[in-house]
Amino acid sequence: MKKKRKSSGIIIIGNEILSGKTLETNSNFMSKELFRIGISCEEIVTIKDEKPRIVEKVNIFRKKYDYVFTSGGIGPTHDDITSDSIASAFGEKLIINMEAKKRLEKHYSDDVLTRARLKMAYLPENASLIDNPISVAPGFFLQNVYVFPGVPKIMEAMFKDIINSLDEGLRYYKKTVSTTLSEGIIGDYIEKIQKKFSSLEIGSYPYFKKNSFGVSLVIRGVDDLKVSDASLEIYKYIESQNGNPKIF
Amino acid sequence: MKKKRKSSGIIIIGNEILSGKTLETNSNFMSKELFRIGISCEEIVTIKDEKPRIVEKVNIFRKKYDYVFTSGGIGPTHDDITSDSIASAFGEKLIINMEAKKRLEKHYSDDVLTRARLKMAYLPENASLIDNPISVAPGFFLQNVYVFPGVPKIMEAMFKDIINSLDEGLRYYKKTVSTTLSEGIIGDYIEKIQKKFSSLEIGSYPYFKKNSFGVSLVIRGVDDLKVSDASLEIYKYIESQNGNPKIF
Repeated sequence: MKKKRKSSGIIIIGNEILSGKTLETNSNFMSKELFRIGISCEEIVTIKDEKPRIVEKVNIFRKKYDYVFTSGGIGPTHDDITSDSIASAFGEKLIINMEAKKRLEKHYSDDVLTRARLKMAYLPENASLIDNPISVAPGFFLQNVYVFPGVPKIMEAMFKDIINSLDEGLRYYKKTVSTTLSEGIIGDYIEKIQKKFSSLEIGSYPYFKKNSFGVSLVIRGVDDLKVSDASLEIYKYIESQNGNPKIF
Repeated sequence: MKKKRKSSGIIIIGNEILSGKTLETNSNFMSKELFRIGISCEEIVTIKDEKPRIVEKVNIFRKKYDYVFTSGGIGPTHDDITSDSIASAFGEKLIINMEAKKRLEKHYSDDVLTRARLKMAYLPENASLIDNPISVAPGFFLQNVYVFPGVPKIMEAMFKDIINSLDEGLRYYKKTVSTTLSEGIIGDYIEKIQKKFSSLEIGSYPYFKKNSFGVSLVIRGVDDLKVSDASLEIYKYIESQNGNPKIF
C-alpha cells in the first residue's frame, strides 16, 4: 500500500512580525526540519495575537493539514493568549496543569513564581507537555496541533525533540544541480525536462554572489532512482552548454 | 474627519520557502515599509506555487484587505505561474503586454530574448506596470493587488516606488540613471550627490546581465524639478567617467 506524504502548516503568532519590527525565522527552521524528515509544509501564516484570529486559523489548519505547528504567545505577559486561544479552538477549558506547575515551582525555587509566571502552567485540559530544556515553561500538543514559544533558541530546542517522534509518511529524495547560466537561458530546457520527469518536482532558484550569478535547480521526488536520473540528465545538458554544472 | 487606517495582506509564493531552503525576508521588508507609512499589515502567508492555491488566496485577500502584495513567481521559468494565476483570480486573460515586451526587447538587445524571457511580458489584460529598474521585467498591479518578483533586491527597488504612491499625502517623482560602472567606483560620488540633494532619496541597485553588470541609480522625491536636476547631474558625471549612462 502506498503511503501518502504527510502535510503540515505553520502558524506564527505576533504583532511584532506584522509591523516588521522582528524578522521571523522560526518558520524557516521548522520547515527545514520538516523537509528533512519528509513532511510537506504546505502553508505558513503570520497573524496578530488576537484570540478570534488564532481560533479561526487553528481550526482551519488542523482540519486541512496532518500537523499544525504554532510559534509565539505562550509567555508570561498579558498579550500571550495562544494557550487560551487553542483551548477555545478545541472547545476545552484552560486549567492549571499540575505537572507544568511542578516544573515551574522547581525552576523558580530560589526566585518568585509570580502570577505572571504561573500563567504559563495554564493549558488546555487535554494538552500533553512538550519539554522545554532551556526555560522550563513547557509547550504542548493537543491532537495534531503543536504549540511552541516564539523565542527562537527555545523553540528550536523543543522542536528538535518532537520532530523525530512524528510519523513522516513517505521519504523524499533530493538533488541539486547548480549552473552559472541564467534562468532566461535554461528556462525552456527545464520546462522540457520537467515534462519528461513529471513525477518529480523541479524547482529553479536564482542565486546572486558578489560578481556572479546563476541558478540552483533542485530535483525532488519519492523515487530515489528517478531523482538521480533527472539530475544526471540536467547535469549533462548544462555541461554541453558550458554552464559549469555542479551536483550535490 | 479621521481617516481609517488602511489594511493589507502579503502573499509570498514559492516552494523554496516552504521547504526551508530559502529564508524569506521580503515580507519583513514590505511590512516595515507599510508600517512606516501607516498601512496596517494584518496577515502574511506563504503558499506553494500551485495555481489553485494562488487563485484562492488572492481572491480571499483582495476582498479582505485594502491592499494585497504578492512576491515571487513572475520570472522566466515554467514554475513561475503567478501572473497567470492572478489573471485567473480576476477572470482576465493573460496576454502579451506590448510595453513590457518593448522594454524586454530593449534590455536584451545585445543578448537573446528567449521564449522563457518573453514569458515575462505576458500579463493580465488590465494590468498596470510597476517599473523594474534592475532587470527590466516589470511587476504589475490590478485593482488592489500588487505583484512583485521574489528576488529581494529587485522587489525592494520596485516596492519603494509603489509604496510612496499609496501614501495619500504626497506624490513621488522618479528618474533612473543606469551605468556600467560598479558601486565601488561611483559610491563616493553618490554619497556626495546625496548630501547635495538631501531632500531626495537616491537608491543604488546593482544589476547583472549576461556579459556585464552595473548599477541602476534611482532618484526619488516629491519635487519634480529637483529630481530632474539631480538625475541630469548624475548623468553628466557618469558620462565624464565613460560609464555609459542611460536615463529613463
